[in-house]
Amino acid sequence: MNVILDLCIVPIGVGVSLSPYVAACERVLAEAGLKTVLHACGTNLEGEWDQVFAAVKRCHEVVHEMGAPRVSTIIKRGTRTDRAQTIDDKVKSVEAKLAGL
Amino acid sequence: MNVILDLCIVPIGVGVSLSPYVAACERVLAEAGLKTVLHACGTNLEGEWDQVFAAVKRCHEVVHEMGAPRVSTIIKRGTRTDRAQTIDDKVKSVEAKLAGL
Amino acid sequence: MNVILDLCIVPIGVGVSLSPYVAACERVLAEAGLKTVLHACGTNLEGEWDQVFAAVKRCHEVVHEMGAPRVSTIIKRGTRTDRAQTIDDKVKSVEAKLAGL
Amino acid sequence: MNVILDLCIVPIGVGVSLSPYVAACERVLAEAGLKTVLHACGTNLEGEWDQVFAAVKRCHEVVHEMGAPRVSTIIKRGTRTDRAQTIDDKVKSVEAKLAGL
Repeated sequence: MNVILDLCIVPIGVGVSLSPYVAACERVLAEAGLKTVLHACGTNLEGEWDQVFAAVKRCHEVVHEMGAPRVSTIIKRGTRTDRAQTIDDKVKSVEAKLAGL
Repeated sequence: MNVILDLCIVPIGVGVSLSPYVAACERVLAEAGLKTVLHACGTNLEGEWDQVFAAVKRCHEVVHEMGAPRVSTIIKRGTRTDRAQTIDDKVKSVEAKLAGL
Repeated sequence: MNVILDLCIVPIGVGVSLSPYVAACERVLAEAGLKTVLHACGTNLEGEWDQVFAAVKRCHEVVHEMGAPRVSTIIKRGTRTDRAQTIDDKVKSVEAKLAGL
Repeated sequence: MNVILDLCIVPIGVGVSLSPYVAACERVLAEAGLKTVLHACGTNLEGEWDQVFAAVKRCHEVVHEMGAPRVSTIIKRGTRTDRAQTIDDKVKSVEAKLAGL
């Protein structure tokens, strides 16, 4: 089962500068061989379910290892069985609708 | 690693009545032996990470098997290493603050 | 337009104990006359759109006034035009499906 | 109060093709003069609180007007009082950390 997921990781108890933690997670996801697109409020990922969730778990572990006592995460996730769809497909599909109007 | 999670599953392409799908997921979670608390916008879960995410994956599969071509899910999730905390602890902690004011 | 909303407020930069901030938000919501149901990962609210969002904005302001330099919030929100529905209706609808199986 | 927000709108009860609804919301946001960045799981917005939430409310209304009986939305939102920050700043901040490693 393929999944498209948006991951937003918020370390708690480490002050207000969170970008070192987000950068560490980006490296975890890249090392897992996942395609990612970073945006201002999270990261889009795509891949096979078990591979994706193993990487997400590793992100939690890494952020704890960096010293964060609490980690709060928001995942938005979609699966579909009617057809294959990638991160790029989803954006292009909306852009096509916008261009056609 | 223990996790407290809030799960909200939205089947897409099956009309407006989603409660049969939510009920099916509640059964999946109960069969997995997870403690759950249902609320109006999701379900609180607690358990060991791998057990929890295996059950969440099974929810996606079941909702697809029931006929939903797309499933959109939102997960809010917290882990903490500084101390153990349950779903009940979290609610009681806020209620204690409210009572004390 | 009526709205059912799930609000989760995470102050950033104030350490790991967040319940005083959640309790302060509960009081803001109660003073606004909104029906709320607290759970382990947020608070369910229902009310008229403008009244609800004025209260949510006030929560952000109060948490900043308490000293949090950053506030991260997750809102899940639903509106429907096909019929009126309350927080209680949503939970009962799922429970009815579970009981009937 | 300035806000950075990630908006994800899911119409329910209109089938599986949601891009026309997302495109309509993109137009609402552009007409409101908001800076937006579209990604595969939502749209980043930045602006003044009241302006942003007026546009978000208008998105819900437009999607209902297009025929969706239910609309489910996820908002992740951040405010900060310690310094001004834009959507671009947030991405650049992570990229700088990645480049430095």
